[in-house]
Parts: sequence; structure tokens; C-alpha cells
Amino acid sequence: MPKRTDWDYSEETVRELREGELLIRVLFISLDPAMRGWMNQSRSYVPPVQIGEVMRALALGQVVASRNPQFSIGKHVTGTFGVQEYFISEGKGLIEVDPHVAPLPTFLNVLGMTGMTAYFGLLETGRPQPGDTVVVSAAAGAVGSVVGQIATIKGCRAVGIAGGAEKCRYLVADLGFDAAIDYKSEDVTATLRKSCPQGMNIYFDNVGGDILEAALANLARGARIVICGAISQYCSTGPVHGPRNYLSLLVNRATMKGMLVFDYADRYALAAQEMVGWIAAGKLKSREDIVEGLETFPDTFLKLFKGENFGKLILKVAAG
Amino acid sequence: MPKRTDWDYSEETVRELREGELLIRVLFISLDPAMRGWMNQSRSYVPPVQIGEVMRALALGQVVASRNPQFSIGKHVTGTFGVQEYFISEGKGLIEVDPHVAPLPTFLNVLGMTGMTAYFGLLETGRPQPGDTVVVSAAAGAVGSVVGQIATIKGCRAVGIAGGAEKCRYLVADLGFDAAIDYKSEDVTATLRKSCPQGMNIYFDNVGGDILEAALANLARGARIVICGAISQYCSTGPVHGPRNYLSLLVNRATMKGMLVFDYADRYALAAQEMVGWIAAGKLKSREDIVEGLETFPDTFLKLFKGENFGKLILKVAAG
Repeated sequence: MPKRTDWDYSEETVRELREGELLIRVLFISLDPAMRGWMNQSRSYVPPVQIGEVMRALALGQVVASRNPQFSIGKHVTGTFGVQEYFISEGKGLIEVDPHVAPLPTFLNVLGMTGMTAYFGLLETGRPQPGDTVVVSAAAGAVGSVVGQIATIKGCRAVGIAGGAEKCRYLVADLGFDAAIDYKSEDVTATLRKSCPQGMNIYFDNVGGDILEAALANLARGARIVICGAISQYCSTGPVHGPRNYLSLLVNRATMKGMLVFDYADRYALAAQEMVGWIAAGKLKSREDIVEGLETFPDTFLKLFKGENFGKLILKVAAG
Repeated sequence: MPKRTDWDYSEETVRELREGELLIRVLFISLDPAMRGWMNQSRSYVPPVQIGEVMRALALGQVVASRNPQFSIGKHVTGTFGVQEYFISEGKGLIEVDPHVAPLPTFLNVLGMTGMTAYFGLLETGRPQPGDTVVVSAAAGAVGSVVGQIATIKGCRAVGIAGGAEKCRYLVADLGFDAAIDYKSEDVTATLRKSCPQGMNIYFDNVGGDILEAALANLARGARIVICGAISQYCSTGPVHGPRNYLSLLVNRATMKGMLVFDYADRYALAAQEMVGWIAAGKLKSREDIVEGLETFPDTFLKLFKGENFGKLILKVAAG
């Protein structure tokens, strides 16, 4: 678990822009479980953040100075700006967003990488069919809540696993999940058996550990497990807990497949367009848990690993 | 590990045939790792063998009496006859085999469920492309040796993992594998890295445990892992050892998929036809490890779990 002393807060003057650069004032920072993985010194899909570097993070900001003709002052953009107040960019990898389409934090949530992860993870890796039972863990979290809602939109039965009665109530009453399981007070394996008497067709995993094993114990034949994350394991200091009952894949002719949202970058815009339509139709709700103040980062970030956030966790750095 | 005292040897008189039945004299019995799984009292793809029942086994026999017009005396058939000398059948599930096509034991090996498992597991679940690197564990075993040979036929690079220098030599020199790794004397993770500098595209797993983890540590992007078995875990009395580094599936956008040969029953005949062609062309070799005597079953069966068999393990019960 990262400690406050793992972070250093420092101030420096923003340097002059060079030709082709623009200066972005960071307004909102996306706090994601994946950031914990970026802090590990092991080979992964992106290089680790090095000691002394600015912590990597996705964020949304506004152009406040520009020597790049593509991005004029006042425009809103998202990108990997890091946990800081200002970011100098050459324009590479920026996505311009239109604040008239949705409130700004939505572009870090349903219309950002969070929503894209849910959309492509469920639709491309899970491949839901109408009538399928779709189970998602960390269901009240940013990705999970979108997965369940898209499952419902696609004619599936959505079952969410979350921590606490309030989150479970929210999933069913506010987001339209068919059922919710409170892993803090229920035996997940037994309750899944009751909630999914025919087994689950899709399990979208954000947590790993015991809950992944409970899912493996309740697969329908031909089930698809989407491996999106494993938050229960990210802060583990012992060996990662591998799914001991993975041979359920054999018995059920099931598939476990990893996904990374970056592979779908060429289709983000199309997906966002479809999701904007669902939001407008009232079928897809976006909920953010917004905490103010860049200096709160070390503590706010930990909410993710303690299961304390309710909806997409966002750090507000400045007024939009 | 099953003990000799877990088995009981008994003799009884074969009863009279009823209308529609036939009597099969068992000649060869197929000894397979899956049989160990059938002895566990847990939910699986077939019901467990109950205490007091004849041990379930695939076998090949000859019709010696018949009141079933479909099966005349003298015909050779394969089916689930169990570990016994005679089997009374109603004809259901029997496959007639032609002893002119291949030696009888071949019908329990390359042309039987063993070969079908390798064929459909590799081609349908693994989906090899020419140029792919295909790694298979228990490569000198019945299924593994066929997987590697089919990989080569399909234009892939075949790498086998087996126990001992003699098995490794056999894979490369006799079966045409591109490389072999001796798990008894080599560090499998490190040697795989050297043998597969670009990572493996397909890993066909028969063993589970540490070797599955070594494979997960060496995946190419988009790799497919075929879960066919996990012999290292079948006799484990402790908890099964789940793959701790399964998040390599996420990093590499890889797939782990279970397969059961029975799902392809409607295509066995076509597959066998293609394999007969490969055998005739000298591209596919069938090797059997034949032990004589029904009474040796308790000890012979254990050869599988000690890695002592070399090729398909078959019990010879009577002369063909």
C-alpha cells in the first residue's frame, strides 16, 4: 500500500514554451487502480514510473498558452498529464473534448478511458449475447458500473459484486442491475450460485483473488472471463494469489482473456459517440467521486485500494 | 497418488447376452491422466467413478459374441469398456475400427482420443498460424508428441518441454521438434526465454503448476494458452497451485482456454482421415509404451504420474 512518504510535493516555475508546444492547466486528474501497477519495477504494457519522475496519470485540462496551431487557448483536452498542475505538450496523444457534450469529469469517466475499458472489454472481449448472465466485480467502481449498464443495454442480465449494502442498493435501484452481491457480508461463491443458477456466461474481473475463484466456480459452459484488472492483488506484498480452480476453464470449455484499452484507440471516438447517445437516452449514468486539492493525492489515491470510492475517483485540481 | 490397495481385482462369469447386446473381448486399454480426475468426488465434465464400480477407461476390443445386427463377430471396436477383460455393450458409443489401416494400438493413440485431443486442441483452440512458435508440455507424452508434430506440419516452430535428456533427444531427432527443454535439469523460464526470443504464440498445457507459470512468463502478444490438462496437480493433496502470474494474460492480451475433446465428436472421422494421411506420408509418428497384463494396472497406471511412460501408455490385455 503506498504511503504518504512515498510521494514528494514540489513546486517549480513553468518554463517558456518552444515552437510547437502548448501549456495545459490541469483541471481534473483521473485516479485509477492501474496507476498502482505503473509503480512496480516489472515488465508490463508501459514502462514503470521511475523514482523522481512525476507520477503518471490521465487528466483533463485547458490550454492556457500555445505555440501549436492545432490547439488554441481555451480548448479542453485529455491526455497523460501526470499528477501536477501544469503540463507542457507537443500535442501528441491529446484528445480534444467538447464541454457542451457533457460535464468535464465525464470525459475522464464514461467518455474517457474508464468508459472505453468497459465498452471494449465487455463488447469485444466478453462478446455478450442477449439473455447472457454478465457478472462484474468492483461493480460500483468506475469501470464496473459502466460494464453492468452496457450489459443491460445489450439485453443481458447484470449481476454486480460490490462492498457494502449502500453500493449494492445503488447498483440495483439506480443503475438497473438485476442483482448485487455484497462481498463484505455474503459468501460470494454461494450467493453467485443462487444469483446465476445456470452459471455465468461472462465474468468481467476487476479484482482477482478470492472473487475470481468464486466466479470460476460458477461458470456456464463456454463462459468468457475478461481480465481487466486485479485490484485485490496490486498492493499485495506476498506472492500474487493465482486462481487455484482455473481448471474450471477446462471443465466448462471457458475462456479467460486479458484486455487493454489502448488496443482500441482507433475506435474510441465511435464508442464515445454511442455512449453519448446512451447517456442522452437515460440508459447510462455517470457517477464521479470528486475530491478537491492536488495536495490530497497520496490519501485520495488510497481510497481505491480500500474500496472507499463510490463511482469514478477524480481529483479536482482547479476550477474548469 | 493412487495406491495398489485402492484397487480390487475380482473375477466373475460373463452373463448371457440379451437381444441387442454384444460381447467385446478387451485387447488394449488406454491409460490416460484424465482417469485420475474421474476418481475425484467433485463435479466435472463426467460423473466420478464410484467406489465398487469398474474403473472407467477407453479401450479397444473385438466382438466375440453378438445379438446386435450392427456389430458382427470378429469386428474391432473402441469405446469406454473399463479396466476389465470383457464388456457387454448395447452398441451405443462404439466406434468400429479397421485393423488394415493401422496397428491396433494406434486406434487408442494417434487415431483415438489422444490424437483427437491434440488435433482439435491445437487446431481449434490454439488456432496456429504459419510461423507461430508453439510450446507444448509433457511433449514426449501421448498428446504432447502429437501436438508438436501437427504444429510442425502446419508450418509452426515446435518447442517441447519434457523430463530427461532421452525424451528431449527423441523430440528433436525423431519427431522433428525445433527445440526441447528438459524440465528436470534446466530452468524452464530462462530456457523458454532463450528458445522463444519473441515469446510463444501458443502454449499447449498438459501439466499446470510451475511449468504453466514459466509459460505465462514468456507469452507473445495475443498468445493462446490451451488448457488440456494439469497432470502435476491431479495427485496433489494440498490446494491446487493456481498460476500466480495469470495477469500476464492482461499485459499480453492473451487468452487461456479450456478444451474437451468430446465437443468435437462429430468431426473425429474427418480428423482421423487427415491423420492417417500424415502417418502414411511419414509426417506423423505414433509411439506406444505397451505394458502387458490386466493385473499390472495399479502399477502401470502410476507410470503416468511419475513421468515414466514414453509415448502413449497402453495396457495389453489379450492378443489381438
